[in-house]
Amino acid sequence: MKKIKFAFAIHNHQPIGNFEHVFEHAFTHSYLPFLEILERHPHVKIGLHFSGILLEWIRQHHPDALDKLRSMVGRDQVEMLTGGYYEPILAVIPDSDKIGQIQKLTDFLRQEFDTQPVGMWLAERIWEPHLPKPLSEAGVKYTIVDDSHFKYSGLSDEELLGYYLTEEEGHLLALFSSSKFLRYSIPFKEPKETIKYFRKIASEEGKNLIVYGDDGEKFGVWPHTHQHCFKDRWIERFFDEIERNADWIEMIHLKDALNLLPPKGRVYLPTASYHEMMQWALPPRAFGEYEEFERILKEQNLFERFGPFVRGGFWRNFLAKYPEANNMHKKMLNLSQRISEIENQKRKSKTKLDKAKDFLWKGQCNCPYWHGVFGGLYLPHLRSAVYENLIQAEKLADELTHTTKNWVDHQVFDFDKDGRDELLVHTPIFSLYFSLSSGGSLFELDFKPKSINLLDTLTRREEGYHKKLLERQEKQQDEQNEQVASIHDLILTKEEGLEQFLTYDWYRRGSLIDHFLGEQTKVEDFSACQYPEQGDFVNQPYLYKIQNEEKSFDLTLYRDGFVWARDKRAPLTVAKKICLKPNSSELDISYLLVNNYPARVNLWFGIEFGFAIPGHEDETRFCYTKDGEIKAKELAMIGNAQRCQEFGIKDHHLKLDINFKLDRQSQLWRFPIYTVSLSEEGFEKVQQSLVLFPNWKLSLEPQERWEVKILNRFSSLK
Amino acid sequence: MKKIKFAFAIHNHQPIGNFEHVFEHAFTHSYLPFLEILERHPHVKIGLHFSGILLEWIRQHHPDALDKLRSMVGRDQVEMLTGGYYEPILAVIPDSDKIGQIQKLTDFLRQEFDTQPVGMWLAERIWEPHLPKPLSEAGVKYTIVDDSHFKYSGLSDEELLGYYLTEEEGHLLALFSSSKFLRYSIPFKEPKETIKYFRKIASEEGKNLIVYGDDGEKFGVWPHTHQHCFKDRWIERFFDEIERNADWIEMIHLKDALNLLPPKGRVYLPTASYHEMMQWALPPRAFGEYEEFERILKEQNLFERFGPFVRGGFWRNFLAKYPEANNMHKKMLNLSQRISEIENQKRKSKTKLDKAKDFLWKGQCNCPYWHGVFGGLYLPHLRSAVYENLIQAEKLADELTHTTKNWVDHQVFDFDKDGRDELLVHTPIFSLYFSLSSGGSLFELDFKPKSINLLDTLTRREEGYHKKLLERQEKQQDEQNEQVASIHDLILTKEEGLEQFLTYDWYRRGSLIDHFLGEQTKVEDFSACQYPEQGDFVNQPYLYKIQNEEKSFDLTLYRDGFVWARDKRAPLTVAKKICLKPNSSELDISYLLVNNYPARVNLWFGIEFGFAIPGHEDETRFCYTKDGEIKAKELAMIGNAQRCQEFGIKDHHLKLDINFKLDRQSQLWRFPIYTVSLSEEGFEKVQQSLVLFPNWKLSLEPQERWEVKILNRFSSLK
Repeated sequence: MKKIKFAFAIHNHQPIGNFEHVFEHAFTHSYLPFLEILERHPHVKIGLHFSGILLEWIRQHHPDALDKLRSMVGRDQVEMLTGGYYEPILAVIPDSDKIGQIQKLTDFLRQEFDTQPVGMWLAERIWEPHLPKPLSEAGVKYTIVDDSHFKYSGLSDEELLGYYLTEEEGHLLALFSSSKFLRYSIPFKEPKETIKYFRKIASEEGKNLIVYGDDGEKFGVWPHTHQHCFKDRWIERFFDEIERNADWIEMIHLKDALNLLPPKGRVYLPTASYHEMMQWALPPRAFGEYEEFERILKEQNLFERFGPFVRGGFWRNFLAKYPEANNMHKKMLNLSQRISEIENQKRKSKTKLDKAKDFLWKGQCNCPYWHGVFGGLYLPHLRSAVYENLIQAEKLADELTHTTKNWVDHQVFDFDKDGRDELLVHTPIFSLYFSLSSGGSLFELDFKPKSINLLDTLTRREEGYHKKLLERQEKQQDEQNEQVASIHDLILTKEEGLEQFLTYDWYRRGSLIDHFLGEQTKVEDFSACQYPEQGDFVNQPYLYKIQNEEKSFDLTLYRDGFVWARDKRAPLTVAKKICLKPNSSELDISYLLVNNYPARVNLWFGIEFGFAIPGHEDETRFCYTKDGEIKAKELAMIGNAQRCQEFGIKDHHLKLDINFKLDRQSQLWRFPIYTVSLSEEGFEKVQQSLVLFPNWKLSLEPQERWEVKILNRFSSLK
Repeated sequence: MKKIKFAFAIHNHQPIGNFEHVFEHAFTHSYLPFLEILERHPHVKIGLHFSGILLEWIRQHHPDALDKLRSMVGRDQVEMLTGGYYEPILAVIPDSDKIGQIQKLTDFLRQEFDTQPVGMWLAERIWEPHLPKPLSEAGVKYTIVDDSHFKYSGLSDEELLGYYLTEEEGHLLALFSSSKFLRYSIPFKEPKETIKYFRKIASEEGKNLIVYGDDGEKFGVWPHTHQHCFKDRWIERFFDEIERNADWIEMIHLKDALNLLPPKGRVYLPTASYHEMMQWALPPRAFGEYEEFERILKEQNLFERFGPFVRGGFWRNFLAKYPEANNMHKKMLNLSQRISEIENQKRKSKTKLDKAKDFLWKGQCNCPYWHGVFGGLYLPHLRSAVYENLIQAEKLADELTHTTKNWVDHQVFDFDKDGRDELLVHTPIFSLYFSLSSGGSLFELDFKPKSINLLDTLTRREEGYHKKLLERQEKQQDEQNEQVASIHDLILTKEEGLEQFLTYDWYRRGSLIDHFLGEQTKVEDFSACQYPEQGDFVNQPYLYKIQNEEKSFDLTLYRDGFVWARDKRAPLTVAKKICLKPNSSELDISYLLVNNYPARVNLWFGIEFGFAIPGHEDETRFCYTKDGEIKAKELAMIGNAQRCQEFGIKDHHLKLDINFKLDRQSQLWRFPIYTVSLSEEGFEKVQQSLVLFPNWKLSLEPQERWEVKILNRFSSLK
């Protein structure tokens, strides 16, 4: 009788910072019902990976589910898999953190389930060939990648009915390949289809092994799958089929396969992830080209055969594609190095150090570091969770390295690894990250009492999929004429009119960005980044001077640049001075403009302050001027206030008041920054930040100076 | 006026172990005349990389050429590039060796040329994303990869007129992209074509940078290029054009470009090499599929546009494709780890340790670790140079770890990283590597007095390009009928009839391989690996026993297997005992066969001994039996000697006599192992080893034992 060995592995995860209701929904609609069915099918063996985040949440909210799991692990029905505790992309975190995070989850599993995991779930199956060394050092014996990873090295389906060994510097790691056929048939095709496939690959000697490894959210969280898997009983029926055919379908744990079966051979895999991820990592132009290529190949029936030679980009390039992802990544690397250095000094509090490391690791959770078609980087609550944890870790590192409470540090170095220096200023209250090469602007502003980066916004940029939204609009217009609307189009977006928000920024959003507007500029155009910029102060280099005295730290950023004034390129100096006191929560900002042109120039000058404080429907966040408060709904809209001298943002959610007092009146523009991105439910717009833009029309004689002082105070709300 | 910056970088290298006349030819036909022309064009700036191997050779044989180079470096006409001293594939050697090898070449350049290189030549442009850390730690600021590497990450030609930054764990590295257009036009198209191209990409602000980086052997060593480059004065004419257009073509050193130009951005590159290399790394089936895919795409004019999404395999997979490459690699890794451990003990002789490290690094020279279309792994003299150096390093490590002269060590561990244990026995004279999982056979036999691995042979296996040879033959037959012969066919092979040598082995070639032949087997069939094997002793597991006494070490390898005897599967035991004395150069081998079948069985038993001692035309190597000597030419042929009790191989080149004395007469078969591979000049056959095969026809009663003793002595010849 022909037999087959079948291993079934599932990965469950929710990111750090995800909403409580999302955890709860995923638990009740997927994780729990899956475990309940599993309990009723004791012959179904399964490998399970939960990220540490999720395990902790379950322990706290549904400890009885862990009991279920514990008893299934106890009777060897379930093999638990380890992984990076907070589900980082292992390839892009330092080796010491890779090992630390894996060991943390392994320890948790040992304590909670009395089991020693030898297998690891590789987050997003992002493979790089140097991984076997740190993984092996962390005690990992095997991991699972997609069969496509193997095919990229030239292996065929027939060669993949087993596992392979790879190594780095002699450190061994076994690699199982998750079958694409199974990933597309479980739970999407009828159970019998899978059984039929098993029949096809079964063999007389019974040593062929087929592995299914995929996300658990496919069973109940993905749209419509709860109905399908549980109400329509797909899982129950699948497990029944497996049990009914137990005489020839032998379920096996991967840990046991390692001992029972010899490896099929040695292999080395190139950098790879799953197929779609590699397309997402491409920049927009290449993204579109790739899509077109795949379309042509599929049309000509060439893709099935030659697909292994067709590949998109490289995961790490998300860090090049999105400066905001890079910002988190380099902050994380920087901090990891700082914590390692503190650790090497060996005389520091171990408890505090371990706590700092744990915050650092939380800040490595992969979800907001990239974007495919499901939110990710575009979701403010996921990014802010990363910043919160990294800032918490920094505060502990501060405590470990600063003996006095009165301190202001500054660093000038290439923070973001673009070859140009940034200037960072740290106090017990703030960290300010200035770009010297681009506008002397502020691109990160950490307010430590709340552990928040107030500049955690997103620049609006083109996505490879945006053109679909535009095509859809055109199509709809055509169809309106024909009175037809297809369901496909209806489910594509969460709201209508999103194409109006497809506007792209030509500079990176932040604060202290110095603009000179053309005469006819309207707030609507400026907010859409479609206006004539007359100066070269937005993204050109600034110089700096520092005066660091005991009780105050003064930083001046200045640039001798140009503005277009009546078709003349007029030389102009912009200098901005930021005064900080060690334990103060005020930023004392003064601007100075000097006309270096031998004639009078008329200028329209404005300073952009962007805050990653989106409006909330519940009106807990709002903007105010002396004239009154602007509530949430209105806040999301573009606005203009005349003759304004005090304004700010109150956030009752964060309990924070960001107040500006000016020493002269200004016009105040405000507008939200919306991005348009894909989510599980289709296109959606997400408010990333609110821009406050005080601006002045002025006329300067030769050598005339113009000044404004801005006191920017951050205070807690009750 | 539109301007362009142009950087020109050349890499010159000859492998460790290459023939003296090849060095000399390359020097006189390429390296030297190139330098001479360069001297006469002081305005042509150039980046030059020579591997340490080549620099040492030039210093020894043509020191005046170094003087030339020195003066051009002195006047900043030439920028010297560093690299791994012995030109290893950096990705597959330990990080400590990466750093050590780079620093060694950097030191050499500093001493010889009074220059501090910041750029590195990346051997075979084999990129992996974890490289920036060790490279940066070794002081490297930039390296050059192909533009295709960048395109794999989604960048376009227009974006590549400059350099990018990448990082690993925050360690920065600048990456320049070598232009494909230039690699195909220099020196193959008329100089004016390149100038025309420069004109196209020149810009008003003059900041576009185009980089040419390629192998120097294209200028004089590749077929016909000496005539073309020097006699037909291509280089001179090209340099003249460059100098004539110096007002808008600004030659620039890459080290200066780093300072003068800002980076174009950040980038992360996937594992990649040049296009062709990635195809070569594929196993034969995928190799053919890839070729077909590329053909279809080119036919449909899709390749030019979508090529960046089309890729072959992964360099490291050469180690999976060729167990012989893996053997060198794992021996090297093992040794590197051993040397690191000795280093960590810190009480060892530094001179000896440095010497050992240097031998280790020589043994990392990349050329014999892989095979594309130019020899490489297929060339015995390149492989034997690797073994020679690794064994030299081992001998020094032995000296550093062994306090007594009388020692025999053994290790049982997974040497080749296939998940199964091997058994290694070491004495001051020999290292014997036994495969426990495959026939208890010997796959490496190091004879330390000569620093040679006598089993450094190659198993005959299919190459993706072999089918071209067969197609050619078919075509020729067709054409003979039509009385036509194309030049293309004439230059394809170095000799006729090579297709007869396209025979593939079903087991790995080595020694102490235990065969049971079918009745009608002829030596011709056996040598072609086309014969009925009646036993399961060739590639099935053996058990082992060790008896280790003060003055002798006895290893017994045994298997209870089966032979087919008259259509019955008869159980049979084969046991082979190898006795070693610490300082003896004799292997005392005894075989025992026991018939466990309840009836008589007739067997034809033989033991395969393969020696990596190819016949030489000059008859310095020959085979002998008691009846006389067999000279080189004949040695290369298949042979058969009856009633033989003493035989061997005399190699006057190695000055080694490998002698066998048996305690009973045998029939002796001998035959060469030829591989068919591609070289610069087309298909060629290469003799990899000589097999000696004593064999016996015997008939065993139930429980009858049969024995033979073989004394295998290795002695020096004058």
